[in-house]
Amino acid sequence: MSLESDLRLANRLADAAAEAIRPLFRAEFSYESKGDASPVTEADRAAEAAMRRILDSELPADGIIGEEYGTERPDASRQWVLDPIDGTVSFMAGRPIFGTLIALLQDGWPVIGIINQPISGERWVGALGKPTTFNGKIAKTRRCRELKDASLASSGPQYFSDHEGEHFMNLASKTAHKRMLFGGDCYNYGLLASGHIDLVVESGLKLYDYAAHVSIVEGAGGQMCDWNGDPLHANSEGHVIALGDPARLDDVIEALACDH
Amino acid sequence: MSLESDLRLANRLADAAAEAIRPLFRAEFSYESKGDASPVTEADRAAEAAMRRILDSELPADGIIGEEYGTERPDASRQWVLDPIDGTVSFMAGRPIFGTLIALLQDGWPVIGIINQPISGERWVGALGKPTTFNGKIAKTRRCRELKDASLASSGPQYFSDHEGEHFMNLASKTAHKRMLFGGDCYNYGLLASGHIDLVVESGLKLYDYAAHVSIVEGAGGQMCDWNGDPLHANSEGHVIALGDPARLDDVIEALACDH
Repeated sequence: MSLESDLRLANRLADAAAEAIRPLFRAEFSYESKGDASPVTEADRAAEAAMRRILDSELPADGIIGEEYGTERPDASRQWVLDPIDGTVSFMAGRPIFGTLIALLQDGWPVIGIINQPISGERWVGALGKPTTFNGKIAKTRRCRELKDASLASSGPQYFSDHEGEHFMNLASKTAHKRMLFGGDCYNYGLLASGHIDLVVESGLKLYDYAAHVSIVEGAGGQMCDWNGDPLHANSEGHVIALGDPARLDDVIEALACDH
Repeated sequence: MSLESDLRLANRLADAAAEAIRPLFRAEFSYESKGDASPVTEADRAAEAAMRRILDSELPADGIIGEEYGTERPDASRQWVLDPIDGTVSFMAGRPIFGTLIALLQDGWPVIGIINQPISGERWVGALGKPTTFNGKIAKTRRCRELKDASLASSGPQYFSDHEGEHFMNLASKTAHKRMLFGGDCYNYGLLASGHIDLVVESGLKLYDYAAHVSIVEGAGGQMCDWNGDPLHANSEGHVIALGDPARLDDVIEALACDH
């Protein structure tokens, strides 16, 4: 397989998921609560099933790690990581800032990533060694000369433990906190890659929540890592930093490490 | 003036604001911090100026209360209340879930309201005694049989004082808190009017942050009031409840009033 043919396939997966999701947006759909009480809808399931059908038929030797239907062929060196709807709560509320996430891992390291917003038709595509694109045009993160000017986004304070929340709030107090954004899930990482947000910090993410973002953010000139500054791979613990300007990394890690 | 001609004018104001905002979305724009350190951009100012030009020329006797350029003719019985960009932080980050808010007050009471999202082209229009519309079609809130099933939205925990935050979190714990949404500003009220969210609770809102929502939510079958259940008017204190199903109002007020 070449990177180009993998990219074509990844784009087809995004198209298939979008077709499954669009008719259910702001429509009647069934949903239920998963084990952790987070909701899953008919749209999450239909979109992941549509992507799995393509992978099963075209790349039957590759592994799949999906949010809704679990893992297949865990020993394969190539793993497709699928989150059919990242931001299910936004989807359910009719907010068009959720997304389908698709990543390809090679030996546990992300080499392709897609964020696709099926309602507005916005797609970020990243691949190792290539510039990130947003709807086909090159996307670039922006510089951020001082942490105090950084706009910070995170999906919601309710996703931090008390202890993590303290570290996050210490960081937040050192950024442009009047421009801090909650909500947004994957969409925040796309906006960071396009140079509209400087910093995303989250905890408790699963592999399928962050794998796609690595190639997108880094191919746009930014950096992704865990809260210690280590690169993200299949076994990371889900404490995630995405930074538009890698020159601010030490400042971010120092502020996150501090207990006030 | 008839309600119909006022509605036509209100729609023209929304069009004019949208024209001023669109070219600046995800573009280079200047911004600065206001007295309370909240940001204001070139787009906020241009959009409010465009609306004021129309009002000054067509309804020179009416009062205007605008977020950016203050109050004119405060003694007029008719007051146009303008928030050119509600959700400036979202606008600056490139999230298409901010909106232009336009309300007409008669003797301090809201009689017309518009929420306009200029990027996605979504517009909610409410007027006293008329059904609310979303892009020209009738919008309706949804029923919510039990508070524990209610999806709750609020712009962000950072906007509550510690004391208010405790009351809010007590309410949140009695709703479907795994579906709680932060961020969104005015867009939450539109989604509530369209039946996708059940409950929005906020504090610290200014008149221009909530005036437009009253006609929209109530014309869609919902209810808006302050945290005591009293109707909202020009002198309300900015503790706001919007509820899709008015039958849940007592439950909401009881949960908000409780100190655990």
